[in-house]
Amino acid sequence: MSRPLFVALQQLLGASHVQSSEEAAPYLTDKQGRYVGQVVAAVHPANVEEVAAVVRACVACDTPIVVQGGNTGLMGGATPDASGRAVLLLLDRLNRVRAVDTDNDTLTVEAGCILQNVQDVAREAGRLFPLSLGAEGSCTIGGNLGTNAGGTAVMRYGNTRELTLGLEVVTAEGEIWNGLRGLRKDNTGYDLRDLYIGSEGTLGIITAATLKLFPLPKAQATALLAFDSLSQAVQLLSHARAGFGASLTAFELLSADCLALLREQFPEGPQPFLGVSQPWFALLELSDNHSENHAREAFESVLREAFEQGLLANALIAESLAQSEALWLLRENMSEAQKRAGRNMKHDISVPISRIVDFVAHTDALLQAHFPGVRHYTFGHLGDGNLHYNVAHPQDSTIEAHMAHYTALSQLVHDSAHAHGGSISAEHGIGQRKPDMLGRYKSAVELDLMRRIKQALDPLNLLNPGKVLQEARS
Amino acid sequence: MSRPLFVALQQLLGASHVQSSEEAAPYLTDKQGRYVGQVVAAVHPANVEEVAAVVRACVACDTPIVVQGGNTGLMGGATPDASGRAVLLLLDRLNRVRAVDTDNDTLTVEAGCILQNVQDVAREAGRLFPLSLGAEGSCTIGGNLGTNAGGTAVMRYGNTRELTLGLEVVTAEGEIWNGLRGLRKDNTGYDLRDLYIGSEGTLGIITAATLKLFPLPKAQATALLAFDSLSQAVQLLSHARAGFGASLTAFELLSADCLALLREQFPEGPQPFLGVSQPWFALLELSDNHSENHAREAFESVLREAFEQGLLANALIAESLAQSEALWLLRENMSEAQKRAGRNMKHDISVPISRIVDFVAHTDALLQAHFPGVRHYTFGHLGDGNLHYNVAHPQDSTIEAHMAHYTALSQLVHDSAHAHGGSISAEHGIGQRKPDMLGRYKSAVELDLMRRIKQALDPLNLLNPGKVLQEARS
Repeated sequence: MSRPLFVALQQLLGASHVQSSEEAAPYLTDKQGRYVGQVVAAVHPANVEEVAAVVRACVACDTPIVVQGGNTGLMGGATPDASGRAVLLLLDRLNRVRAVDTDNDTLTVEAGCILQNVQDVAREAGRLFPLSLGAEGSCTIGGNLGTNAGGTAVMRYGNTRELTLGLEVVTAEGEIWNGLRGLRKDNTGYDLRDLYIGSEGTLGIITAATLKLFPLPKAQATALLAFDSLSQAVQLLSHARAGFGASLTAFELLSADCLALLREQFPEGPQPFLGVSQPWFALLELSDNHSENHAREAFESVLREAFEQGLLANALIAESLAQSEALWLLRENMSEAQKRAGRNMKHDISVPISRIVDFVAHTDALLQAHFPGVRHYTFGHLGDGNLHYNVAHPQDSTIEAHMAHYTALSQLVHDSAHAHGGSISAEHGIGQRKPDMLGRYKSAVELDLMRRIKQALDPLNLLNPGKVLQEARS
Repeated sequence: MSRPLFVALQQLLGASHVQSSEEAAPYLTDKQGRYVGQVVAAVHPANVEEVAAVVRACVACDTPIVVQGGNTGLMGGATPDASGRAVLLLLDRLNRVRAVDTDNDTLTVEAGCILQNVQDVAREAGRLFPLSLGAEGSCTIGGNLGTNAGGTAVMRYGNTRELTLGLEVVTAEGEIWNGLRGLRKDNTGYDLRDLYIGSEGTLGIITAATLKLFPLPKAQATALLAFDSLSQAVQLLSHARAGFGASLTAFELLSADCLALLREQFPEGPQPFLGVSQPWFALLELSDNHSENHAREAFESVLREAFEQGLLANALIAESLAQSEALWLLRENMSEAQKRAGRNMKHDISVPISRIVDFVAHTDALLQAHFPGVRHYTFGHLGDGNLHYNVAHPQDSTIEAHMAHYTALSQLVHDSAHAHGGSISAEHGIGQRKPDMLGRYKSAVELDLMRRIKQALDPLNLLNPGKVLQEARS
């Protein structure tokens, strides 16, 4: 069956846009090298009509379809399984900017556009497209939409979902839904848009989106803050929200151990607060619509109040763009610093901000009781309640011995996040890595509702089967 | 069949919480007096478990369920049909505030809470719950969620959907989904929350919600602006967005005819810009997190620039809270002014802001060609692209003669909104008034997707049947 489909796809798209499994090898392993798949073919359609035609060809021979963006996901959501039955759909040729509308503050782009290019197009139009994350140089907006990507500007601008007004989607039957509306208000029926966003290619294939643009800030101010306790950091966050309002655009937490790891792995990098003994730090960023002076004044006035109220132990205010970039480099280097230090166990959790202090204290203690000596690298988007709660092996042990405990340790962390009203996947999604966990943390009612929706929109279970929901194909 | 159900409901809830059609009369006519229904019973359950029990009792005897909040909707969405077959579910006893969490900036309230009470609870906690609309003294948060209500603060804070983090919902089978999460980031499966929001009680019954809170602004500044053209108003909006950023919280348009109507109907009310001949006006509001002075300076600096750039003909800046309230009174009196002047044809449309000028010019001309002499009362949330495009009878004609053209005239307006990339219901929803229009403006693909979702979540079509989707019950 697979050979006739391969030929049919070549006829639809042209032979040069259809690859065999061997040719498509770079797309068949996920970024972390955790999953490796096989396919009937990897296809590069040129436009939405060709995407729809590919889907119809696959439906005709009961072939699953896996869609992939920049292949930067962390949950294996875009990697086909090893059966070799699926077609891999690559949207790299759908990379046009369809419209820039500065009066409406919207941008309509195709799914294959690289996020950084989308940011650039917005900036050239004198606007900000605020979605920003580590992989922005290679991830695509389609992947961001499929996973409802978060990143560093969520506190102010929201996740990808909140940045999206309209979508174009190819359905599981290969029909095209044109929902590319540039409207801030439209109450004419069910919210299909938000259902497709974050569904990881399991309900439909997003081919284009109309996105919100924002004014470019005129100035930014950055500071690295030091805290005597995590609780003090949470209080300062509350104070900063009240003082800065929507101007507060980032509040990124780093533990003292993270800062030490950065110093160790990047001895040539910035070395702020050397000799300072506080246990917690945060990078705070303010964006201002007026001027540098205005930003600076607001910044200093709010931080001065914080000092007076005992909400802050120390603050290092960037005096120049270079200093600001040096401070941000700390946060940006965290991934690489961990990589250099060897593998650790990563957890992308969120809890209500009011429960973060309890969550960290409780989970740290629990892990030390069960896995004595493990080292904690806790950092992340405190302003969103989203922590990267990562755990490295004890000094006197090996990575291999540590990794043998992965399932048990991660379950402790996830159980704790859940018990604190939190999520086991704040921004990375479910993919093929976490579907089995959903049964542990979601109610039967919620899983049943999700299954009904999957069944309603993809009754043949051809769209990215086994991702998000752990269903055997019938 | 209806008598045993009535008795069963009395046993479930206590006799005093179950009313006959006669007793429930005030709930059976919609606010506008356009629709009148009959019911088996109107029930007032005390909590979510009782709501679930009511639904199960109705399912057991194939009885439709219509949920109603404050009965302030404009589309008849909460009014049962005249068959007398349905049970009307009133959530007025689900009016508890379940949690106020100022560190997490969230509020968890039951669906029957009056919107104004929710605002008050937030304010008492030193926070802002920004949803604000004309009916806030009597509408309920459950109704706001069911219809994804908009209002006057959407430009800055979004619609009800964007203000909601979590929901509790009773499903069509009478099961309880506890999705009351207070998380800014949670990518663990399909977005059920946003599917229920705006579904007008046709997919599930929202019984509680976790809502976002914001810092209370420290100061506000208000001005009434006069423009030489609608195009100038759109340009000023763009300028104000760039200059004020997220501090710009309202931009409400009023035509000169609206201002004249207000003067005529409220001779005792504020009379700004008497003798000024500009055709368009807008109420602009800035909210500031710093101080009165700061707000004032920012306001004057941005407006001065606007004058210099020719984006503004005249501006009246409120010098006091009383003056600010007087300006807002203009906008708030628009509904009543129209009522006093007699009925007119209301259209709640939205178009991309970049197309508003074309939409108004084109539609005004079209209406004058087909219905010479009709008078236009165009106003609304320009910052959201949402206009209340209302049309009154010609001076030399009667309301009755005018109303005879309702269907044809409204269709012209809606066709024009649609042709300009817009929506035929920006914030009022579909209810029982507009389902037949969806077929004209939605693609077959979209309607099919909506029907599949309805079928998946309410397979017996018992939840508010005939609303949103015009399906005959099978």
